[in-house]
Amino acid sequence: MTSPKQQVEMHPQRWGDPASATDLPDSARGLIELAFGLAETPAVDEVTVPAPALSEELLDSLRAVLGVEQVLTDDETRRLRTRGKSTPDLLKARAGEVGDAPDVVVRPGSHDAVEAVLAWAVEHHVAVVPFGGGTCVTGGLAARRDGFAGLVSLDLVRMKRLVSVDHESMTAVLEPGLRGPEAEALLAAEGVLLGHYPQSFEFATIGGFAATRSSGQSSAGYGRFDSLVVGLRVATPRGDVRLGSAPMNAAGPDLRQLFLGSEGAFGVITEVTVRVRRLPEVELYEGWRWASFATGADAMRTLAQSGLLPTVIRLSDEAETAINLARPDEIGGQSTGGCLMITGYAGTPAAVEAKRSAVSRLLSELGGTSVGEGPGEAWAHGRFDAPYLRDSLLDVGVLVETLETATFWSNRDRLYGEVKAALEESLGAGTLVLCHISHVYETGCSLYFTVAAKESADPLGQWLAAKARANDAIVATGATITHHHAVGTDHRPWLHHEIGDLGVSVLRAVKADLDPTGVLNPGVMVP
Amino acid sequence: MTSPKQQVEMHPQRWGDPASATDLPDSARGLIELAFGLAETPAVDEVTVPAPALSEELLDSLRAVLGVEQVLTDDETRRLRTRGKSTPDLLKARAGEVGDAPDVVVRPGSHDAVEAVLAWAVEHHVAVVPFGGGTCVTGGLAARRDGFAGLVSLDLVRMKRLVSVDHESMTAVLEPGLRGPEAEALLAAEGVLLGHYPQSFEFATIGGFAATRSSGQSSAGYGRFDSLVVGLRVATPRGDVRLGSAPMNAAGPDLRQLFLGSEGAFGVITEVTVRVRRLPEVELYEGWRWASFATGADAMRTLAQSGLLPTVIRLSDEAETAINLARPDEIGGQSTGGCLMITGYAGTPAAVEAKRSAVSRLLSELGGTSVGEGPGEAWAHGRFDAPYLRDSLLDVGVLVETLETATFWSNRDRLYGEVKAALEESLGAGTLVLCHISHVYETGCSLYFTVAAKESADPLGQWLAAKARANDAIVATGATITHHHAVGTDHRPWLHHEIGDLGVSVLRAVKADLDPTGVLNPGVMVP
Repeated sequence: MTSPKQQVEMHPQRWGDPASATDLPDSARGLIELAFGLAETPAVDEVTVPAPALSEELLDSLRAVLGVEQVLTDDETRRLRTRGKSTPDLLKARAGEVGDAPDVVVRPGSHDAVEAVLAWAVEHHVAVVPFGGGTCVTGGLAARRDGFAGLVSLDLVRMKRLVSVDHESMTAVLEPGLRGPEAEALLAAEGVLLGHYPQSFEFATIGGFAATRSSGQSSAGYGRFDSLVVGLRVATPRGDVRLGSAPMNAAGPDLRQLFLGSEGAFGVITEVTVRVRRLPEVELYEGWRWASFATGADAMRTLAQSGLLPTVIRLSDEAETAINLARPDEIGGQSTGGCLMITGYAGTPAAVEAKRSAVSRLLSELGGTSVGEGPGEAWAHGRFDAPYLRDSLLDVGVLVETLETATFWSNRDRLYGEVKAALEESLGAGTLVLCHISHVYETGCSLYFTVAAKESADPLGQWLAAKARANDAIVATGATITHHHAVGTDHRPWLHHEIGDLGVSVLRAVKADLDPTGVLNPGVMVP
Repeated sequence: MTSPKQQVEMHPQRWGDPASATDLPDSARGLIELAFGLAETPAVDEVTVPAPALSEELLDSLRAVLGVEQVLTDDETRRLRTRGKSTPDLLKARAGEVGDAPDVVVRPGSHDAVEAVLAWAVEHHVAVVPFGGGTCVTGGLAARRDGFAGLVSLDLVRMKRLVSVDHESMTAVLEPGLRGPEAEALLAAEGVLLGHYPQSFEFATIGGFAATRSSGQSSAGYGRFDSLVVGLRVATPRGDVRLGSAPMNAAGPDLRQLFLGSEGAFGVITEVTVRVRRLPEVELYEGWRWASFATGADAMRTLAQSGLLPTVIRLSDEAETAINLARPDEIGGQSTGGCLMITGYAGTPAAVEAKRSAVSRLLSELGGTSVGEGPGEAWAHGRFDAPYLRDSLLDVGVLVETLETATFWSNRDRLYGEVKAALEESLGAGTLVLCHISHVYETGCSLYFTVAAKESADPLGQWLAAKARANDAIVATGATITHHHAVGTDHRPWLHHEIGDLGVSVLRAVKADLDPTGVLNPGVMVP
């Protein structure tokens, strides 16, 4: 088990572990200069974290609850719990803005200790922001603090146990503070696998996956995180909720689905019971080339509707394919245009071979051309690295951000066109809009956009305007404002378009019931 | 499209279409006499339906909303909307008890008309019970009427449109009043299939499937009904809710899962968007013999955890297998003990052959013995007939009822033993308790019990006591009180064991928000 002291903290102004960051390769710098020009935009080094707004007396009462060591008010700890890792978050961090740092960071070590923190917060009317990996990209850590005595970051870093494994039912009970690799290491020692690999995998946590309805790169094979959850324990200001009496039931509404995606606004998830699978003996990735994004997407649809999905399937559009091909070290340099699809398989050798052969036959019939394992392995190798690249681009004055949505197949092409147009219109000539499909269902798919533009004098305002245009386009086509990154504060103004005024009313009613004084992540998720 | 006038009504005291009912075969009568004795227990013919409690003035205001023809107060129509089809419901109906008949039956033809009925009900404080197929077995139609001016049965029989089919996304929008075969006929004309076959298939409706989280006999292949739903429209006293922006999303909690299983207590489902599949070209059923229920169940678990489920898979325990073998016309007469498993496959010839061959290989390896297609075809032929048999047994003084639950695999054996013991202890010596597994997941399965006992002088009290003992045993093992028959009024006293006091509190908060005056199915589902 990783001890909290040893856990690598993310850099306050950048993604991930500073030791893993790499400089831009010279070839990339050349391309970027050509496309956007280069402008060094150094981050502000001198950062002043405001003094905690909570009195020493109040902090002492918290220390009495949790112990002195688990109540942290030093500047660095508080700075590291300020906001998440969206580009707007990074732009603010680079500008030295930490005015919304929490007043105190607490580290409860158990469900009961979480409940004790919540009781303390209710008593003193202090806002509580649950903190897992800090990888949020939708403003879910930026709780409203006005009207509250202060703001506490409830860091789940000490709750890292694999509580139990049920090998017969193939389930495991995990604590929320486990990061992706930590959870997989503990499970691997039991011969099983969770199989959830979002891009934030190395830092994001089990509790965060559940609270935000995360989806991983192997969603085609293992399912979205919400589909992996069979049970939950949640600490609320009114007490304990335990759900998950059976894989599925008809005992009224499925309340698990109310806490999944609740982003700390209904309670703090303190245990998650997940489906696990046997550790795969073989993992294999390969590339396929398609004449166009549309033909590749149609092939994905056919696979999904034939019940023939590999473990990983993703398809880059023409622009994203071209950009990746410009990095010849990563995909083998086969630059013949079209669109690149990655397929991945995991399992026993026999199962992998059977699935691969059936999928490959169908893809060939549908017009795909295999380009071998090189591009697949290159993708798998770099699968968690994109956020580091974003930092390098921000360093040279290129505004980079991603956004994602999902829709039914028949609306895919319209959604793709309208979001792309909205971003290009807002960000102007020379903007790069790349897209891939990385999650597919029988009935539809996600679209994941990456945007790069030359930074204006006000890059934050520049991006917020573009993102608003994109969100407007998304809701206008009837698609979802987020397939796997949650609502946070950034998507909240659009949520009512998706669930209607009554849907919003229901969320408010649930929140009022579980959190009558509203201390839980105020302003996040619930409009 | 079936017109409402032509729709076959179920018999008020029996299951289904009187024209489809058959007498007990003589061979069965002999066995029953041996086991329980025979006692003719005729139903009461003279039934007095109480006069409507609503004034003519109030009824006139309803007629003004819906039109005179859609507001029915005749005795026969009201009697046919009284309660559902559980054995307690049938025992009451046979005893001539219709004191809880609705005061009026209304038949709105559109979402807007449903909203108009709800507005009328709120204005006059009249309770509203949505009515689909009337096949409920958990008391979901027995709303509380005290404190209300009266009770209206909101019959969805006129809402039978297939609104649209999206062939690219493979979804269809269905109105709630479509019975199973009607929905499938409309979809088949479009070349697609819903694939939802609960035992109540011939009479139950799309709205009812959604409102109760029904699961069908082909759940292994096509999924439970809740997993087939991608969108919903719901009429509530506060207006319209439309959900389903994408196959899945992370835009907060999945509110679809709050209305699925809400049994009319949160609103009236007026449209359901479902996944559809291509019509199968081949359907094929076969039988497998297992040495014991445990070895067969383990094989099902292995199949599920290998991702190798057929379209249908079910396994009878030793007692149920023996009873079925006593009806030699139906399963080919191979009486060599053990347990019978039915496997079924549907799809293209190639897909069926590939799946069947992989499944059969695994089942053989695990110790199963194929007994050919005879038993499978016999099961498929009689798959909707068991409720007719129940009537015939009630006719001769045999108390027959079913109940079901679900749990994780590691708890299966304990749950099976404890429910069986509870029923046998409550109903006494000579009671037959049969069980089968008909729905399986990677992590667990359902257990479906059929109970037969000699009727006491008070068969209703006799069954209610046994069912309470069984429910106590179910919640004591941590299993669910219902896998696919909803809460109704019968399971309501046990719901808090499953979702906790806070879960109950959340349900009440949602109900209070959407239905502030509480007119929607009062007393049903929400404790």
